[in-house]
Amino acid sequence: MLLDEPRLPQDFVSAGRAVGMRADPDAPDLALFHSRRPATAAGLLTRNHFPGAPILLARERLAAGRLRTVVVNARFSNVATGPAGLADAREMAELAAHETGVSPQEVLVGSTGIIGRRLPMDRIRRGIQGMGATLGPDLWPAARAIMTTDTHPKVVSAQVEGATLTAVGKGAGMVSPNLATMLVYLFTDAAVPAPELDRMLRAAAARSFQVLSIDTDTSTSDMVVALANGAAGEVSATAFRTALDAVCLSMAELVARDGEGATKLLRVQVSGAVDSSEAGRIARSVADSPLVKTMAYGADPNVGRLLMAVGKCVTCRVVPGRVRITLQGVEVIRAGMPVDFPEARVRELLGGDPVNVRIDLGLASGEGMALGCDLTEGYVEENAAYASS
Amino acid sequence: MLLDEPRLPQDFVSAGRAVGMRADPDAPDLALFHSRRPATAAGLLTRNHFPGAPILLARERLAAGRLRTVVVNARFSNVATGPAGLADAREMAELAAHETGVSPQEVLVGSTGIIGRRLPMDRIRRGIQGMGATLGPDLWPAARAIMTTDTHPKVVSAQVEGATLTAVGKGAGMVSPNLATMLVYLFTDAAVPAPELDRMLRAAAARSFQVLSIDTDTSTSDMVVALANGAAGEVSATAFRTALDAVCLSMAELVARDGEGATKLLRVQVSGAVDSSEAGRIARSVADSPLVKTMAYGADPNVGRLLMAVGKCVTCRVVPGRVRITLQGVEVIRAGMPVDFPEARVRELLGGDPVNVRIDLGLASGEGMALGCDLTEGYVEENAAYASS
Repeated sequence: MLLDEPRLPQDFVSAGRAVGMRADPDAPDLALFHSRRPATAAGLLTRNHFPGAPILLARERLAAGRLRTVVVNARFSNVATGPAGLADAREMAELAAHETGVSPQEVLVGSTGIIGRRLPMDRIRRGIQGMGATLGPDLWPAARAIMTTDTHPKVVSAQVEGATLTAVGKGAGMVSPNLATMLVYLFTDAAVPAPELDRMLRAAAARSFQVLSIDTDTSTSDMVVALANGAAGEVSATAFRTALDAVCLSMAELVARDGEGATKLLRVQVSGAVDSSEAGRIARSVADSPLVKTMAYGADPNVGRLLMAVGKCVTCRVVPGRVRITLQGVEVIRAGMPVDFPEARVRELLGGDPVNVRIDLGLASGEGMALGCDLTEGYVEENAAYASS
Repeated sequence: MLLDEPRLPQDFVSAGRAVGMRADPDAPDLALFHSRRPATAAGLLTRNHFPGAPILLARERLAAGRLRTVVVNARFSNVATGPAGLADAREMAELAAHETGVSPQEVLVGSTGIIGRRLPMDRIRRGIQGMGATLGPDLWPAARAIMTTDTHPKVVSAQVEGATLTAVGKGAGMVSPNLATMLVYLFTDAAVPAPELDRMLRAAAARSFQVLSIDTDTSTSDMVVALANGAAGEVSATAFRTALDAVCLSMAELVARDGEGATKLLRVQVSGAVDSSEAGRIARSVADSPLVKTMAYGADPNVGRLLMAVGKCVTCRVVPGRVRITLQGVEVIRAGMPVDFPEARVRELLGGDPVNVRIDLGLASGEGMALGCDLTEGYVEENAAYASS
């Protein structure tokens, strides 16, 4: 159902432009997405106590359930910038509204990058000016423009009957589940009323972005927002929900695998828990464990670390003797104890991507999942060096 | 009050021996501590769901409030080893009891190292045999014997009136607060009844080991146990409590600073919170943030990360406009926004050890602290490579 060649849905256009905020002045750092017709909208926003100005603006705009234009800049997150930062975000919305011929109330602003610095509004003003004329069906310049430490642009498309659903996203660091988890924009030409879009988006996020963590840090800027412009008419709710789930999961895995310094996706599935909440927390405990993450990287089947990570969730119910764990499909723990598994084979399998950990707690039927990535020297190098200036 | 030259209290002796469990066969890997007279005892044990056999045994032994001998091996943790592992731990206690002329009920066993493998009991039997004759006042061989990835043995002593209080500990990785956090043995010749020792040890741990996290992982083996043999008679409760607090804090800082790959101590103090629980959780959120830890390592004053880490504690009360943060004593955040601080100076100060972060939430009078360390390539290298075999 996912398309090999991602594309924007009907009557959606985008553009990317380099306005010189990045170290490489030719790298695009400003993105514009636009629906040529009215669109319903829904979204999830970060719960961090220091939401950026774009998040404050998004709260207002999402309440109306209608959006047509999304403008995003990289390099500066416009967080902890006070009333002046909020005025900058409003001005960005006005400029993008003027450029795309819509009301500023129909514009969503996104910003990602360093915290605590004002946006270079002169560059942003000059950048947005004339960008409307460059809008077109090519989604890659805009997808590139929103990247921070991502190593590649991230786009996923699915066909839903006669309609298309496309997600454009970015991740890399400071990604952890708490409502929104990164910048992800979903566009569809299916007709979906805003309340239904909101409900389906929250359900899809609960099984994708909400179970994703790169480094346990929760950004101040992150948002997952969907726009539906109805150009392709109505589609079955079931088909749309299925496509939305698949696109969100695929985008979440793309983001996890491209976490800062990461070399592979880490997928932890827990079954047999007392309930789904405990299953999710145990999955998270394992996927976030630095010792499990370094094991996935080093490909050394030090399986005792898996027990430690399950066991440290002290507020969850665990009966050691009932725990069974497979690593890349090979049983490594049975009845709470390591079994005599083929170590060389597991070592080889651990060299692959993704690393799959399945944990059966053997208590009841609660299930949960967590997506993460390995922890490498690259993460430390990127973040010890990431310039504040 | 802390002594420059740590020493064992009166009528305590120890020994360390190399029995060939480590890669280097000459490195000590078996430790014995012994009180020549009866001693009261109290302790805190890991809450991990997969407690090692020594923890199960310790639960029994601590209930009686009396211990005289502590035997510890490195390299194998005797965790997830089932009934056979518990029998091994009991046998270790019996061997050490025989060697030191006490009842097995008065022996505490500690094991640290790889999870999920049986102890090499032949080596341990041969090792313990004759060790009683080598017991003496030198505490360094035993302190070295309990190390895993620690880079140096850890001993802290304090004088309490006519008595001495000495802690011998090890840490390095898989250290996070949840009751016990590592192996720490405290010995004193002060006379302290077991219930009082327990109460004072829990209070001291709450302000030291319980606020310490190296990597958020909680070991299956950790214990903090105190023995008081009364050889120096009674001391004032206030003086003892003060010494115990100081020794525990000093040991916790030693462990944090020597975390795997760490180059420095990270000390986060939060004031002005709604209550001490929220203060502690916010301090923990900041000290555990990989982006703050890499900032401490890279010495780059990317202070927005501090706001992010405070803000991601979404279940705590935070009013952004009231938050003030100092980094190495320099105000970097005021009213929730970065101030124009002397960046070169802060960069220089961040190169030092420890890195001190003070956060005033400006809401009420709740205070809390967290101890941690920086995150470096060294952590990843050690843990990607740490052999399971």
